[in-house]
Amino acid sequence: MAPPRLYLDWNATAPLHPAAREAIMRAIDIFGNPNSVHGEGRAARAAIEGARRKVSAFAGTDAANVVFTSGATEAANLVLTPDFRMGRTPLQLGHLYVSAIEHPAVREGGRFAKEKTTEIPVTEAGIVDLDALAMLLAAHDKAAGLPMVAIMLVNNETGIIQPVEAAAKIIHAHGGLFVVDAVQAAGRIPLDIERIGADFMIVSSHKIGGPKGAGALIARGEALMPRPLIQGGGQERGHRSGTQNSLALIGFGAAAEAAAGQLETRNAAIGALRDRLEAGMRRQASDVIIHGEGGGRVANTIFFTLPGLKAETGQIAFDLEGVALSAGSACSSGRLGESHVLTAMGRDAKLGALRISLGFSTTEEDVDRAIAAFAKIACRRRSAGEAA
Amino acid sequence: MAPPRLYLDWNATAPLHPAAREAIMRAIDIFGNPNSVHGEGRAARAAIEGARRKVSAFAGTDAANVVFTSGATEAANLVLTPDFRMGRTPLQLGHLYVSAIEHPAVREGGRFAKEKTTEIPVTEAGIVDLDALAMLLAAHDKAAGLPMVAIMLVNNETGIIQPVEAAAKIIHAHGGLFVVDAVQAAGRIPLDIERIGADFMIVSSHKIGGPKGAGALIARGEALMPRPLIQGGGQERGHRSGTQNSLALIGFGAAAEAAAGQLETRNAAIGALRDRLEAGMRRQASDVIIHGEGGGRVANTIFFTLPGLKAETGQIAFDLEGVALSAGSACSSGRLGESHVLTAMGRDAKLGALRISLGFSTTEEDVDRAIAAFAKIACRRRSAGEAA
Repeated sequence: MAPPRLYLDWNATAPLHPAAREAIMRAIDIFGNPNSVHGEGRAARAAIEGARRKVSAFAGTDAANVVFTSGATEAANLVLTPDFRMGRTPLQLGHLYVSAIEHPAVREGGRFAKEKTTEIPVTEAGIVDLDALAMLLAAHDKAAGLPMVAIMLVNNETGIIQPVEAAAKIIHAHGGLFVVDAVQAAGRIPLDIERIGADFMIVSSHKIGGPKGAGALIARGEALMPRPLIQGGGQERGHRSGTQNSLALIGFGAAAEAAAGQLETRNAAIGALRDRLEAGMRRQASDVIIHGEGGGRVANTIFFTLPGLKAETGQIAFDLEGVALSAGSACSSGRLGESHVLTAMGRDAKLGALRISLGFSTTEEDVDRAIAAFAKIACRRRSAGEAA
Repeated sequence: MAPPRLYLDWNATAPLHPAAREAIMRAIDIFGNPNSVHGEGRAARAAIEGARRKVSAFAGTDAANVVFTSGATEAANLVLTPDFRMGRTPLQLGHLYVSAIEHPAVREGGRFAKEKTTEIPVTEAGIVDLDALAMLLAAHDKAAGLPMVAIMLVNNETGIIQPVEAAAKIIHAHGGLFVVDAVQAAGRIPLDIERIGADFMIVSSHKIGGPKGAGALIARGEALMPRPLIQGGGQERGHRSGTQNSLALIGFGAAAEAAAGQLETRNAAIGALRDRLEAGMRRQASDVIIHGEGGGRVANTIFFTLPGLKAETGQIAFDLEGVALSAGSACSSGRLGESHVLTAMGRDAKLGALRISLGFSTTEEDVDRAIAAFAKIACRRRSAGEAA
């Protein structure tokens, strides 16, 4: 008989939060086109605007600064463009700088040409190198347009919190625009676009317990906006055309509200479980390498390498034990390659690394089951090593 | 007390089809990231691939030719680009020709520059002018790249079926690529990409009773594909990045299956209701103008002008009577402008026109209520006219 499932891959996607599930169930028959002026349309629009207020409050800004998209990847492609507008006046950006540990949605550079995209290195500790950033921006040629910089708030593989506030000061001193991918930070540390100093922030619904198919580009103000990626009927005040996905947005709003509540208490509890899990892993295999454990991490993520165990093999072994975790990022459509995050940190990426990520419904029993599975797999690895 | 609501705006968006609703309810706890390799991910992927098979069967092609998007607008922006690829070899298209009655999502021209987009006129009957198309393509300068032509299968305002099969022959004789917006045709007339002769077809979930937030770009084959609009993790075989919206896609699949079934019987019944409604409208106001009534229309749409009644005023009056219908297209985020479709047909667009669109659950009683509301509004208009 197959073992019961234990889901420890919350950074890939979170199970639907009860509040989001309930909001969806309640709203499933709100079907009007939110752009219709009749009663059915107005009901849908009111529901979407309610969701917008919840998402904007979550990000510490006004509802008017939230552009809903189909997800974080679309939001990244929308904002990463050299073509901006101040009202109707075009403003051309010159170059994009992205940290070496960004998610593929950002690393691909959106609508910037490849030759107009430069990588910002990270330190061995997995933290974006601010000295390198300052040097890159000092050398930036403003004649071709101002720079744009994209740095994530929390890395999706290691969970390491990036120094975005300090980065913002450097970027703004050079007249640059700062885009912060807050997808993995959302629900784990406070999101306050003003405090962070981001000009744009990207969030995703399904990483915080909302449904898939919703995300947002959040701006600090509406004065400076990217040329739309998707044009047509002019929805989202012209910034993103296409009938809004009302059901997903309603769920997104509910999830954002839930994620904003009791953030510290929830994450303290998750952190305690993470510590218990790491201690258990160390007891079972003292040679386990936990990447980024020295730095500031969010409470829910463990990115580790077990010497002698390839990450792909490990992932399958855990899956067979009923435990869902991932080898690097799950956002590469099942492709298993070397982790660009490990490589950027100067680690040997050959073995790869496994990621365990916990969520609000993870329990102590879950953690103990995970330790037991880990013990079994670590032991098998030793036996195989001895046999070889 | 407010009158009970009667929804007659199915071309703007359809209420969730019971089959789609049930599929969503059943799948609401399928939460895995479809790109994860563990059990939860595989379950989500299997559900999406099931939906893909249903949508591809609906369009008369293979599942491999379906690229899921967040909706029809995104699909239009994806395919309307001069940058194509044959495998890895870039292929540049030179110019885009769009009919004057296309939906804004197509009329905006996607990623073609404005100066590389030309409008194809329509006849007074609201049918795309194939002679004009042939002349435009004969004059097309192939040195700058092959032409792309976009013509919708059914117009969203008039319901008029366009001669896409004949257009396909003309376009292919000139080496052009043919994009067919099938959003309003889906569920009303058969969609068979091979018979139609389209190279690409666009469909939307929420117009056929699926949830919002899902659509598809359907290709005749995968050899020639547009450069992705949204890049990142490489989902949808690289054609569209971003975690797939599994719940919406599952609902889309169920709606497509339902829409494909008993298409003729269902639309014959809807056509009979439409005829009853038009006859009733004529009895109440013999001067009512029904646009496109002479041509081949789909069974569910009535686009009409009541002399002396502005469409915006009429829409509000119907809404107050409990009847949801629209003034032109609903896809313009509540903006009420002159109908570009009426203008293209050479009609006086000042009064505008109202659109009634029926669906599978519309009943004879609904039609009689609509006639009664129409009578009241038409009568009020006469009184106002007499008083003036």
